[in-house]
Parts: sequence; C-alpha cells; structure tokens
Amino acid sequence: MTRVLILGGGGMVGQKLAARLMTSGLKDDPTPDITLFDMGFPPGGVAGPAQMTGNLGDPDTATRLAALKPDIIFHLAAIVSGESETNFEKGWAINMMSMWHLLEALRHEHLRSAGAYVPKMVFTSSIAVFGAPYPDQIGDEFLSAPQTSYGAQKAICELMVTDFSRKGFIDGMSLRLPTICVRPGKANLAASSFFSGIIREPLNGMEAILPVPDTVRHWHASPRSAAGFLVHAAALDTERLNGRRALSLPGVSCTVAEQIEALRRAAGQGAVDLIRPQPDAAVMKIVEGWPRDFNPERAVALGFRAEESFDEIVQVYINEDLPNATV
Amino acid sequence: MTRVLILGGGGMVGQKLAARLMTSGLKDDPTPDITLFDMGFPPGGVAGPAQMTGNLGDPDTATRLAALKPDIIFHLAAIVSGESETNFEKGWAINMMSMWHLLEALRHEHLRSAGAYVPKMVFTSSIAVFGAPYPDQIGDEFLSAPQTSYGAQKAICELMVTDFSRKGFIDGMSLRLPTICVRPGKANLAASSFFSGIIREPLNGMEAILPVPDTVRHWHASPRSAAGFLVHAAALDTERLNGRRALSLPGVSCTVAEQIEALRRAAGQGAVDLIRPQPDAAVMKIVEGWPRDFNPERAVALGFRAEESFDEIVQVYINEDLPNATV
Repeated sequence: MTRVLILGGGGMVGQKLAARLMTSGLKDDPTPDITLFDMGFPPGGVAGPAQMTGNLGDPDTATRLAALKPDIIFHLAAIVSGESETNFEKGWAINMMSMWHLLEALRHEHLRSAGAYVPKMVFTSSIAVFGAPYPDQIGDEFLSAPQTSYGAQKAICELMVTDFSRKGFIDGMSLRLPTICVRPGKANLAASSFFSGIIREPLNGMEAILPVPDTVRHWHASPRSAAGFLVHAAALDTERLNGRRALSLPGVSCTVAEQIEALRRAAGQGAVDLIRPQPDAAVMKIVEGWPRDFNPERAVALGFRAEESFDEIVQVYINEDLPNATV
Repeated sequence: MTRVLILGGGGMVGQKLAARLMTSGLKDDPTPDITLFDMGFPPGGVAGPAQMTGNLGDPDTATRLAALKPDIIFHLAAIVSGESETNFEKGWAINMMSMWHLLEALRHEHLRSAGAYVPKMVFTSSIAVFGAPYPDQIGDEFLSAPQTSYGAQKAICELMVTDFSRKGFIDGMSLRLPTICVRPGKANLAASSFFSGIIREPLNGMEAILPVPDTVRHWHASPRSAAGFLVHAAALDTERLNGRRALSLPGVSCTVAEQIEALRRAAGQGAVDLIRPQPDAAVMKIVEGWPRDFNPERAVALGFRAEESFDEIVQVYINEDLPNATV
C-alpha cells in the first residue's frame, strides 16, 4: 500500500488534496494510506486520513517524518508571503531551514536503506519565485529573481529538491502554483488573500475589501486545479523533466476588473456592489512585484491542466465550496 | 579607514585581490585595513594584510567574522565543484550553510547597531548556476537550473545575499565569475582545473592532461580580471542593480582548440606537444553541463571588463605569473 504524507495537510489545499485522494486515490493505488501533518486541523475536516500534529520548526520533526518512510510526500506547508515579509526569522526557519532538515532526514533514511528508499516528493513552490520586470508572458526559461523573502525561500527549496533528486536521494519536483482562487473559508495572511476575498465574500453576502487598483493583472487557478496538479505530479515520470524539476503551471491570467466581471455574470450587480476599494500601499507594493501572465509550455506538454477562464474558477467555488461557506 | 575582510583570502583569487588592494587600494580609500581569512595561507603570499585562520564550517566562525564589523566583505571561500560533487555533505555545509550563518551573524550585528552597520558584501558566485540546455548565448534573464551541487549551492547563496540586501541588513551582490584561467600554481580539485593546466603546464615545460575533446567551448577570464571585477563591484552603487543583485560577468568564449592555438601563438608547437589527451568521463559529464557563451549586457553596462581574446588571457599569465611558477 502506498504511504502518502501531506505536510500542511490541515491547510486549504492539503484538505482538498486529502479529500480527492480519499475519493479517487492515486493512479497506481486507489486506496493509499494517508497521513496528514500540520500544526492543527480544522473542525469538520476530511475524515479518514491519520492526523499527526507538530511544528516543522522543531528540531526532531524532520526525523519523525522521515521515519514514517512515506512513499509520496506532498510538501504544502509554508509561512505565507505576507507573514514571511513581516516575520523574517520565522519565514526563513519554516520555509527554508525545515526543508533542509527534511531533505537531510530523508537522505539518511535513503542511506540506511542502502539506497532502496527513494521517496517521491511534490513540493508546492510559487510564482513568487519570479520578480519584476517581466516579459508579457513568463516563459519556462525566465530567471527566478524573487522580490520577497517568501519567493526567495521557495526558490531555494526548488534548488535543494532538484539537487537531492539529481543525486538520487529523493525523486522530487516543485510546482509553482498560480495564486489559488477562490479560497474557501476565511482570509489568510497571504498578501494575495484579497484575490479570493473579492469573489468569496460577495457570494456569501458579505462586504469585501479591494486593496489594489482593478487594473492589476494576475495568474490564478482553482483549489480543484491545485489538487489536480499535485495528483498529476505524483504519477509523473520525472525522467521527462530532464533535470529541470521546477515547473510553472497553467492558470488563468486576468485583471481584477475581469474577475469582477466574472462575479457579475455569476451573481449580479448586487454582489459586485459589496466590493469596497480601500487602497493599501503595503499590499500593493508586494503585489506589483508579482507575475501577470505565463506561457507554461513544459507543464502543458506534461499534461498539467487548469481552468480556461475566470468564470470557470468562480463556478468551481460555487459548486464545491459555497454550500459549506460560513456566512 | 575602510575595514576589508577577504574570505578565502589564502586562495588564488583572494591573493590576487589582496595584492591589488595593497597596491592600488579601493576607490574611496587608497590604504584600506585588510584581513584575510582562510584555513591556511601559502608560503610567500601577499605581505601586509592581517591573517586570520579558521574553518567556515565551525559554528563560531560566523560570529567571530561578523564581530570584526568589516565594511566590505569579499566572500570567495568555497569547496570547489569537483569536490562538492564527490563530498555532498561537505559541499552543502561549507558552500551553503556557512553563508547562512554568516548572513545571520551580520544581521545580528546590524540589529545591535540599531541599523547603522550595513556591510557591503561581494560574493563570488559562478557560471555553474546555469545548466544545459542553453541558448547560443546566455542572456541576463536566463534561468538558474544548475546540474551540480556546487552550482545549486552558489545559486542558493545568490538568493540569500539578495534577500538580506533587500531587507537592508547587508548591501550585497553576487558575481558569476567565468572560469578563471590561467590559474597559477598547482591544479586544484575543480573539474575546470584542466582549462588552466593545458596552458600553464606547457608554458612551464611540463606535460598537461586534456580530459575532454578539444571541441568543448567554455567561458573564461583571467585572475587579473577576477580581481578587477571584485574591486569594481565594491565601488558600485547597488541601487543601479534594481534588485537583481546577481550578475553574469564578461569573459572570453572559446573552444579548447582555440585555447591551444593561442598557446601555439605564444609559445610554439613544442608547448602544444606537451598536451596529452586522456578522456575522463567523469570530468566530461560535469563540463558538458557548463555554459559555453554569454551576453552579459547588464555587467558591461555597469562597467565590468574582461579580456577580449584568449591570447590576452595567456599573456596575462605570462606577464604576471610565469616567472614565479613552480616548475
């Protein structure tokens, strides 16, 4: 039986992934053995998987996790972008140093097994590894020049995952997720949180704050696509990556104005009227350094798929999450 | 008086830099106070600078170095590419983790000084941050996809230096040195060592081993250019880097056959006859992943200069190092 470990399994994408694995399993194993690791778990979360509580910043956590000898590790745990920017030490400790300790612990398990143990790792990186100025579309050979600590930490983890994989200690890859939208539940500390808020709150009859001009263009995919990317990556033959194990993924490029038009088409002017512009220079400063559009040829050729329009992204939220939303 | 610290000050480039600073000083200080740090120093090395012995892998080294409160840190210390590939733990410990500890120690000095202390750091990165496949010329926006542990470690340090600088803890930049050629003295453990060997040994009447086909194209600059890059970077206003603090530098792109022709022009057929082809698959595997040519527009616009031909590079060795060579 395939042992699956989801780091950050209590988070939004972790829960989506766990739910999907409980329903549909993996390509080669319809009923994998799933363990979720996180600092805590939401009430009413996905039932079935084992739950393991801990802090990636603790010195023995990496050893405990590697001792489980998971066959597949989905690494989704992170301090989000906004908090990494305000809490420098915490961001580097959790987003960078804990990855190092985990990779080292896995390498030691690999060596102890005389090379037999080579876990698959799917790491969620981010489009925050890129920094302005950009071409109109970011291609697969564009440099990582992050302009946030979060982006730097993600870019460093990509390099580590690639080198530990090249040496055969793990078989890893990094997925640069688009901004996941529409996130169900509450706003989080990510600077990108408002991209979901301006759709989610109005659909739930609540006011939403828009901290940036509606001309801001950004790159999105739904939580359903995120779970789909992860499951697809777990089944991918990484030989096809030719040593470049970090991938930019498909998504939808649109402006905030276009997001709002999609909301109007789905829920009418009344919903749109709940969006209140309230410029926030700190958020704007982070967001204006972010990518606007991609041409992710490699990921598309490798079979990764996202939504085709922001209307589709709104519909995914309405179908999957709106009935459960806390109003 | 400007306090200068050269990490790796006992190495070849460190000694060239120290000699240059002793002779010509810095742009704003003709007689800086220089300290060299290394595991040891060559007999007959540059006289004048203070010498400090230690190991970057020791836990208290970073604190000791930061306590010197240097105004300018030239960070040249590294485990070279070949050894980083064979000794995984040592490469990551010295090339990555010691940079982290040094940056953290400097950040603590910055905080203790209430923000007054912001040292300049010039870090020698490497063209090994790039990995094949390449365009004909590598431009300034090409991705870092290293295919060696050494390259991954250098790319990670670039990201750290940039983020610590963006936050204002240091004022750093990373210089991706071309392969430095012709290195005086003995061969080292770098996989690139033969590029110097095939010129240096024949000029000293000794046989040289050529482990790769003479069609291999690579990117070179002299030790004199390396010292020049470092001094130029120390005087550069880093605001001009616009947040992209890692630079590919100018150099000479040529094949091994073209190197050999330059040797023939400088020293005749007798010298060329001392080169003995002896293919080495391990060296070839590393070298074939290396860059062949660059278009370093940003560095050129910022005033960095190298040689214009490999003949010039041979001549620098003959003028500066041949009389002192150990035969």
